[in-house]
Amino acid sequence: MRPLVEIFPIIGWLQNYHRQTLVSDLMAGVIVAIMLIPQAMAYALLAGLPAEYGLYASILPLFLYSLLGSSRSLAVGPVAIASLMVSTAISQVAVQGSEDYLNAAINLSLLVGMILLFLRSLRLGSIVNFISHSVLSGFTSAAAIVIAISQIKHVLGLELPRTETINQSLSGIFAHLNETNITTFILAIIAFALLWYCKNKLCCQLLRLQLPDWFAQPICKAGPMFAVLFGAIVVWKLNLAEAAAVDTVGMIPQGLPHLQGIHIDLKLWQQLFTPALLIALIGFLESVSVGTALASKRQERIDPNKELIALGVANLGSAFSGTYPVAGGFGRSMVNHSAGAQTTIASAISAILVAITVAFFTPLFYYLPKAVLGVIIIMAVIPLINFADFKACWRFNKADSLTLAATFFLVLFTGVEIGILSGIALSIALLLYRSSQPHIAIVGRVGESEHFRNVDRHEVATEDHTLALRVDESLYFANTRFVETFILEQCAEHNTINHVVLICTAVNFIDASALETLEQLIVNLRDKGITLHLSEVKGPVMDQLSSTHFFDLLGEGQIFFTTDQAMRHLANA
Amino acid sequence: MRPLVEIFPIIGWLQNYHRQTLVSDLMAGVIVAIMLIPQAMAYALLAGLPAEYGLYASILPLFLYSLLGSSRSLAVGPVAIASLMVSTAISQVAVQGSEDYLNAAINLSLLVGMILLFLRSLRLGSIVNFISHSVLSGFTSAAAIVIAISQIKHVLGLELPRTETINQSLSGIFAHLNETNITTFILAIIAFALLWYCKNKLCCQLLRLQLPDWFAQPICKAGPMFAVLFGAIVVWKLNLAEAAAVDTVGMIPQGLPHLQGIHIDLKLWQQLFTPALLIALIGFLESVSVGTALASKRQERIDPNKELIALGVANLGSAFSGTYPVAGGFGRSMVNHSAGAQTTIASAISAILVAITVAFFTPLFYYLPKAVLGVIIIMAVIPLINFADFKACWRFNKADSLTLAATFFLVLFTGVEIGILSGIALSIALLLYRSSQPHIAIVGRVGESEHFRNVDRHEVATEDHTLALRVDESLYFANTRFVETFILEQCAEHNTINHVVLICTAVNFIDASALETLEQLIVNLRDKGITLHLSEVKGPVMDQLSSTHFFDLLGEGQIFFTTDQAMRHLANA
Repeated sequence: MRPLVEIFPIIGWLQNYHRQTLVSDLMAGVIVAIMLIPQAMAYALLAGLPAEYGLYASILPLFLYSLLGSSRSLAVGPVAIASLMVSTAISQVAVQGSEDYLNAAINLSLLVGMILLFLRSLRLGSIVNFISHSVLSGFTSAAAIVIAISQIKHVLGLELPRTETINQSLSGIFAHLNETNITTFILAIIAFALLWYCKNKLCCQLLRLQLPDWFAQPICKAGPMFAVLFGAIVVWKLNLAEAAAVDTVGMIPQGLPHLQGIHIDLKLWQQLFTPALLIALIGFLESVSVGTALASKRQERIDPNKELIALGVANLGSAFSGTYPVAGGFGRSMVNHSAGAQTTIASAISAILVAITVAFFTPLFYYLPKAVLGVIIIMAVIPLINFADFKACWRFNKADSLTLAATFFLVLFTGVEIGILSGIALSIALLLYRSSQPHIAIVGRVGESEHFRNVDRHEVATEDHTLALRVDESLYFANTRFVETFILEQCAEHNTINHVVLICTAVNFIDASALETLEQLIVNLRDKGITLHLSEVKGPVMDQLSSTHFFDLLGEGQIFFTTDQAMRHLANA
Repeated sequence: MRPLVEIFPIIGWLQNYHRQTLVSDLMAGVIVAIMLIPQAMAYALLAGLPAEYGLYASILPLFLYSLLGSSRSLAVGPVAIASLMVSTAISQVAVQGSEDYLNAAINLSLLVGMILLFLRSLRLGSIVNFISHSVLSGFTSAAAIVIAISQIKHVLGLELPRTETINQSLSGIFAHLNETNITTFILAIIAFALLWYCKNKLCCQLLRLQLPDWFAQPICKAGPMFAVLFGAIVVWKLNLAEAAAVDTVGMIPQGLPHLQGIHIDLKLWQQLFTPALLIALIGFLESVSVGTALASKRQERIDPNKELIALGVANLGSAFSGTYPVAGGFGRSMVNHSAGAQTTIASAISAILVAITVAFFTPLFYYLPKAVLGVIIIMAVIPLINFADFKACWRFNKADSLTLAATFFLVLFTGVEIGILSGIALSIALLLYRSSQPHIAIVGRVGESEHFRNVDRHEVATEDHTLALRVDESLYFANTRFVETFILEQCAEHNTINHVVLICTAVNFIDASALETLEQLIVNLRDKGITLHLSEVKGPVMDQLSSTHFFDLLGEGQIFFTTDQAMRHLANA
């Protein structure tokens, strides 16, 4: 049997747990909870659900992650981008506000959890590697913009239907700009100022006052909480909900969510499968990226396989709490880490605080204006918009920057799902295109050495009767004709050639199409009086070739251990 | 202006045209026409069209190809597999026998022609390289089986509706087996015997009689024509159409097809686009394969770009003749070549003979039994079924044999379009999967030489403080984390290591995701007191890296020209 600590990493951490670790975790747990409570309500609204479902998604899933997670400081819970994806996915199958909508959200959590566990059981976690850096970067920036724009209506107090793309959102906003609720807008401006002040100024000022850390740190991160309390109190005291028609969160039922059964509907699963897969992959990828980055600051590593299980089970926890999918959030995880979280006990403490809030303090949020939650969301997603990345990609690799730009604009103008799927398809297509036209270098000897390099880049000596060339790619169906044509053209141009040496340092495998083409090439060249030789063929490729009649077909052609041996032998021949 | 000969290869050939060339072409043209006339009618029935449309597709398209084609001996016209694909595609949008069905066939020709010309104009002809050898092989074998089984109902004289998959066809046949028309079946058996005799015995016997070539050769290839004449005469003389209810081709209108306008319907184009693309790609691929094979027997090459134009225009010719798509056929091209075709004049001669037949002799075919045409089709497609290829693939490369088998069974049981698309997707997925888990070799020095090879395969010497490893793949989004994990695990296992040398002989490019991972790896290793070095970095990759701050980040890490230099330097350091 596997030791329990392999399943529950927390057991390992608890063996060295002492008072100081607990104090650190407690501090981080409190700070994260202070950020989490307003964000969770805001993200639930973004997902098209009542505010309490964000809180429900911040209790059981956090406990489960704290048991199973391998990252000490990843803060799991509702996150902005997954909330947007949930809203996009469910709006296609149910009307916002209906029972079906909630039911679809619960089923989505269940699917996301099952997909993550399924990927773990098939050891397919590495599938996320097919979402390239540029796709993720373009997607994240665009999704952040879509989210920010989706909140403008709340900030202005406009009542507009849900929209899919930003041009719809923007045209709706401009068409109804004259209906702006001035009171709501002023509240939002103040909330914005408060958040900006807490984030950029307050911390420095508190540090200058040399207040103790345990006091200053929570206050620094409490901007959203201050904004929420300020908004709720002002609306309550001035009776703005009725007097000025400020839209508020309203009645939030008091009490913990019940563990509940799930109404399963296979047709619904079919409709939700693709979005669930994308939410699972993106959520997992973001969580692993943040988790890895934070772990490496401690000279540690997280285990992606354990993360698949932990996030999978956390999402099942969401489903059974009757709420929507969760993931590891970027912002809160950074705060958790810098606030000193030592183990996932910090997450458990956050969960307890959220549970206490849900159990006793929800009436506090009755008068909370939605505009304030909108401002909190906007402030949370702005750091995700990253144009610098595009510039860096552009300098380094044009294909990557094309993928990034395409994903960005497709997400903005056609929606998150089509955008990210097209981005993945494009990155794969560009990769295939590149490897279908491989770099082929004609090489010559460097001085008197045993080394051979590209004639176009180095001062090298070539031979009249022997053409040595290096194909910088494995030989397979998409590029094999390109290579064949290149060699035949070179032979036609240089009619003194009797030998062609194909240097295979970069040939990592040969597929059946390429084998066929190589065999044709041998015959074609022989008809012209030219012999094909190979050099520096790798072990696995030699194994492959020796299972065929390729060596017989080579005839007088030889396989040389090094290019140097090939050239010396053929020069003397 | 480009010389005309670049557009019309035939002009070049005509410059050396003399009497003997004409005699050869005439002979080949006659032989191909004798094969073509029965096959064209048979394939039209396979495509779900009246027999005359096969003949119409064998006149103008052949003339156009003879003007523009770059292959001396490719025989263009109706082909079996494209006919099957046409029938599958059009049956989804129109009822067989209706005006709409014919209209869809014409539009399909137009689309196929336009797609081929479009691919030429974008220089995207190489897109066919993404159909790998194994996909094409699995597809061809399965399509041949589907075609053969589709003809059994004609051979047995059963009246059954058109079916999509072989299990439907077979269950229909078995359910109605007791309705077999014995007379039809006997006619089919005789036709089969006649074809088999002509193909396998007659030629040898004629050669033994030492008859002149111009007399013996056409007779050898006339099996289908004999079968047709035999069937038509027997049915006519014995009045079998009425007396024994033998299904015949019936009335074929006499006279050449009119050049006609095309009723264009954009919604129809949308529905037909995917099948048109597949017909264009498969048709082009088959034509180029056959053309290349035949040209190389003459030490010549064909020009795939000219073939795109020639086949594209030939298909436009089909559309304006009011008929269905054409391609270069395997069987008839082989016959054309071995009958001595010297230029595309042979094709023009075949076209003239078909035109004469259509203008004057169609009443001959009134009593032609469909069963005979079914037998002709079956005999023509049996050579396309190739199980040996699967065995060869299995020995050489398991992934290729998996693709082949999957394509084969999907085409057989789900249909040609899904089958081939899934095959292409699978071959790309397997390729990506393979390169996402690249072969990484830890290398050591071979004796006292400058060469480094895999420690697992060769007797080599390694160093305690320096880990040298060679990644046999470019570094990009799908494999970069795999490589990072491998290196970090190796460093954890061998704690004496101070230097890691990454040998980049097989790294042909680095994308933005890999750059990011490499940068993280440098920092990660440095924190453990390990320095990362690179060796044998290729020119294009050096160019890429030097556009970033990668070299600054390397710190004490160096880029070595050769692994030998790296190991000597680090051993002395």
